[in-house]
Amino acid sequence: MNFQEKIKQYARLSVAVGVNVQKNQEVLVQCPVECAYFARAIAEAAFEAGAKDVIVHYSDDKLQRVRLEHASIDTLTDIPPWKAQSNNFYADRDSVYIMISASDPSVFEGIDPKKLSAQVKATRQATKPTVDARMSGKMRWNICAVPSLGWAQTVFPDLEPEQAIQRLWDAIFTAVRIGDSDPVERWKQHQKTLDARTSYLNRMQFDALHYKNSLGTDLTVGLPDNHRWKGGGDYGPAGVFFVPNMPTEEVFTLPHKDRVDGVVYSSLPLNYNGNVIDKFSLTFKKGIVTDYSAETGYEVLQALLDTDDGAKQLGEVALIPYHSLISDMKILFYNTLFDENASCHLAIGDSYTDCLKDHKQMTEQQMRDAGANHSLVHVDFMIGTPDLTITGISKDGTQTPLFQNGNWAI
Amino acid sequence: MNFQEKIKQYARLSVAVGVNVQKNQEVLVQCPVECAYFARAIAEAAFEAGAKDVIVHYSDDKLQRVRLEHASIDTLTDIPPWKAQSNNFYADRDSVYIMISASDPSVFEGIDPKKLSAQVKATRQATKPTVDARMSGKMRWNICAVPSLGWAQTVFPDLEPEQAIQRLWDAIFTAVRIGDSDPVERWKQHQKTLDARTSYLNRMQFDALHYKNSLGTDLTVGLPDNHRWKGGGDYGPAGVFFVPNMPTEEVFTLPHKDRVDGVVYSSLPLNYNGNVIDKFSLTFKKGIVTDYSAETGYEVLQALLDTDDGAKQLGEVALIPYHSLISDMKILFYNTLFDENASCHLAIGDSYTDCLKDHKQMTEQQMRDAGANHSLVHVDFMIGTPDLTITGISKDGTQTPLFQNGNWAI
Repeated sequence: MNFQEKIKQYARLSVAVGVNVQKNQEVLVQCPVECAYFARAIAEAAFEAGAKDVIVHYSDDKLQRVRLEHASIDTLTDIPPWKAQSNNFYADRDSVYIMISASDPSVFEGIDPKKLSAQVKATRQATKPTVDARMSGKMRWNICAVPSLGWAQTVFPDLEPEQAIQRLWDAIFTAVRIGDSDPVERWKQHQKTLDARTSYLNRMQFDALHYKNSLGTDLTVGLPDNHRWKGGGDYGPAGVFFVPNMPTEEVFTLPHKDRVDGVVYSSLPLNYNGNVIDKFSLTFKKGIVTDYSAETGYEVLQALLDTDDGAKQLGEVALIPYHSLISDMKILFYNTLFDENASCHLAIGDSYTDCLKDHKQMTEQQMRDAGANHSLVHVDFMIGTPDLTITGISKDGTQTPLFQNGNWAI
Repeated sequence: MNFQEKIKQYARLSVAVGVNVQKNQEVLVQCPVECAYFARAIAEAAFEAGAKDVIVHYSDDKLQRVRLEHASIDTLTDIPPWKAQSNNFYADRDSVYIMISASDPSVFEGIDPKKLSAQVKATRQATKPTVDARMSGKMRWNICAVPSLGWAQTVFPDLEPEQAIQRLWDAIFTAVRIGDSDPVERWKQHQKTLDARTSYLNRMQFDALHYKNSLGTDLTVGLPDNHRWKGGGDYGPAGVFFVPNMPTEEVFTLPHKDRVDGVVYSSLPLNYNGNVIDKFSLTFKKGIVTDYSAETGYEVLQALLDTDDGAKQLGEVALIPYHSLISDMKILFYNTLFDENASCHLAIGDSYTDCLKDHKQMTEQQMRDAGANHSLVHVDFMIGTPDLTITGISKDGTQTPLFQNGNWAI
């Protein structure tokens, strides 16, 4: 199968399995200018699948960098109404959303983290209806990854530009199960594996998880009553199955935002808005970060935690074996979509409220009381190591080994 | 001077001489995805000149082609409000507008001209405030040209891709007076030459022009009372000088829409919305096209003329010597911005009402009565040949030779 065919197959996978576009739906695509050819492949695939229209919003991080260097913070945070509407318009129209991710991990290196953080916050506030529609699954979404030169060269610094891009494409195709056998069928099989794990965890309804490893992590993460583990795809409110993340090797749920205690150490660098945060730790008391450290990107981490109150609490807990399709490639992708699938992780910030079993019958306040966190940010960070131990603690104190030496013990 | 320096100089020329950006203004940029590097250069130059912000709207003709192939005409003409607002928002805010032109002349080849024309019309209607703000000079604007691969290969079909792009860049730099001497100074000198021609024509106040050449053109174009010839730059309502077109070798005014009679033959192919119309003629009676022919692109011409009533009447008359900076390069650019400066031309469609001396004191109806044309389109087409004769006819019947053998006779 040649490269062009793989691109077509990837675009079809995103459209058919990812957002699962239905006849006469609109497809909103967010795409870096460097990856226009992939947006066009998505458009072809979407129309083939019966889409009504494909609307592509092109973004340009390098241009953003010029604006961040020169424009005032007032200008950068003054999001024009048309810009918010260019997203929110579709949140109200039963559309689906495909995001093409290609970011150069260091494109915003050296930019004042406060400026960057303020802009991200203002944009998220302005597009809250869209963000909410995605978080609730009302607007089915999917992320695809396309190598940009900056990204490929960060991952493979010793290769020539063309080679680096080719190697990264190969890794992406492997990760999303594109190849000679039918990827749609392979995704069905994979979903079954994830379903078995979520069924077990949902049955057990652990009261808390305890993490421990040689990095120094010693953390207890409480889980809400009636939490629900999810993995792979899910049904949107309209009853249509979709798979937001490809690859996805994780099973995840929401932690109880006020029942997190201890210290956790990062096991991989975190790329946040074009800045790298590395070798960092977070100390929690009653769910809130009370102390933190970072060998690289301390100020970026600080700005992130200072976004709002919710940015100092957890919003996601995800379990991934140390041996997985992604982690076995032994590639550090500097991209959360991939790296989060190579390692157990947590996220600070907003939680997926549909991980509460009765979320549809609950008010926002009831969900908060149950342990759901609210924030303008949701940032994953990796904590898995080859010696990670995770223990499930039941309400009656029973301890069940879940992970040993970084892998599932069940 | 290396390529990067020329790009910087070109961006500065567009910002400083083209739109003449003032401190704290916003700069709206329309840019094909393929030319993102040039939009970034514009952004750098604009911030250096004191701009408050630079907003870039990326366009993608190849994606548009996919939409035109698959989406219904209803979908294509249903311009979402945010899309109109993304332009109109800036028309109200004392912003300036830079358009980067790079179009592949045949990108829409084979697309149903009616579909294409309907979409262009719907977009122009939705963005009328922006179009009006530009036509009136309220929103100062400038067009830059950047080679796309498709464009470069159309102009230089025998060259390798990289070479074709390089040759086209060289031609563009020559045409816009980028080189070792200061381009800003060269533009000042050029403006003086154009000013001398417009002064003469404004003093003469010809009642009509008569065109004749061996292609078969035999056309009389009436001019309104109190018409005003313009050339090069102009002052916007805020009193700031700007130069919309670079290159610009023409002097132009508006014809009287109801006083055009005879037949005119095109002398160069016309690229209209990614389709080529070639070897065509238009026959006018009392200002209206009553007959037309085309060896190539007849249906595209038909769709163009059928856009609205104004699309069947003239909106511009422009004089350019057969020998000029552009025409002496002997390159057919397949791009109106350049080709219109290589040849005398006319435009069908909307006229520049500020070519009526007292336009500020006139109502829309008074301007129409004076001869101004209104249309959703404004499309230049070339009529200059090496044997073109143009005669100025005064109210008293006196005939003054204006052009002989394609060049100025005065």
